[in-house]
Amino acid sequence: MNYFEDLEIGHVVELGQHYFSADFIKNYARVYDPQSFHLDEAAAAESHFGALCASGWQTGGVWMRLMVEHVKSETQKAMAEGRKPATLGPSPGFRDLKWLKPVYAGDTITYFSTITGKRESVSKPRWGLVTHHNTGVNQKGERVFEFLGTVFWERRPG
Amino acid sequence: MNYFEDLEIGHVVELGQHYFSADFIKNYARVYDPQSFHLDEAAAAESHFGALCASGWQTGGVWMRLMVEHVKSETQKAMAEGRKPATLGPSPGFRDLKWLKPVYAGDTITYFSTITGKRESVSKPRWGLVTHHNTGVNQKGERVFEFLGTVFWERRPG
Repeated sequence: MNYFEDLEIGHVVELGQHYFSADFIKNYARVYDPQSFHLDEAAAAESHFGALCASGWQTGGVWMRLMVEHVKSETQKAMAEGRKPATLGPSPGFRDLKWLKPVYAGDTITYFSTITGKRESVSKPRWGLVTHHNTGVNQKGERVFEFLGTVFWERRPG
Repeated sequence: MNYFEDLEIGHVVELGQHYFSADFIKNYARVYDPQSFHLDEAAAAESHFGALCASGWQTGGVWMRLMVEHVKSETQKAMAEGRKPATLGPSPGFRDLKWLKPVYAGDTITYFSTITGKRESVSKPRWGLVTHHNTGVNQKGERVFEFLGTVFWERRPG
């Protein structure tokens, strides 16, 4: 990863894609969101969603995995180029999460992250605080998911 | 569930408790958040968290399950008493999610939900829109998680 100082406002990263199979949706729903429209095709067809669709919290969890994989990949790239990679700290939370459209079984969601702001941390001089706007877009180009995240980001040493 | 008209601002519901075992944390993290402090005790001890802790998105997923179970239980109670239960519609999203403290392996989190606002939907006359403030509290009484949710809630017919 680049250091806090190198981050450019407006920079967009494509984090990756995920195919939501019916089994993937049901496996999550059994443990975390056992509503019939996340568990059973026939019941989902009768619901306001009209077809089997993913729990909104699963759509968020997949964003997390793709972000983690992106950070690992960037870290490995920096090390391969002989640069010391910056590390990310914890996230204090996020704002304005929206589930804009259902994510149906068979959908492929592409996730994007755009850096929208950064400021130095007053209390933690090693860190900056970065805000990033994240979206999920389905194979029809429809935005299905978005939120505004915040994360601590390492500053360049010295 | 009660109908939209019967909901009282300020009413608090205890949704239930969940014990976060190390295996529960790791099983989620393998699929959705493969960072070392969610997967491995020794690596977590070296991290800024100091011990194995749950992915923040898993803390949210457990809230979802307990909310679903609460709604099912209230619906069954209404039917047993011969009342027609109200149904909940989809959630358009939520605001201001905060991960205030880590949820460590061995923690038991109790989740609460407080109704903080309601208004009639202009575009969907069958529904009201309800806001609810949700929290997770650990066994020491420390708040670890909170967010402000929104959900469509059925109005009394007629």
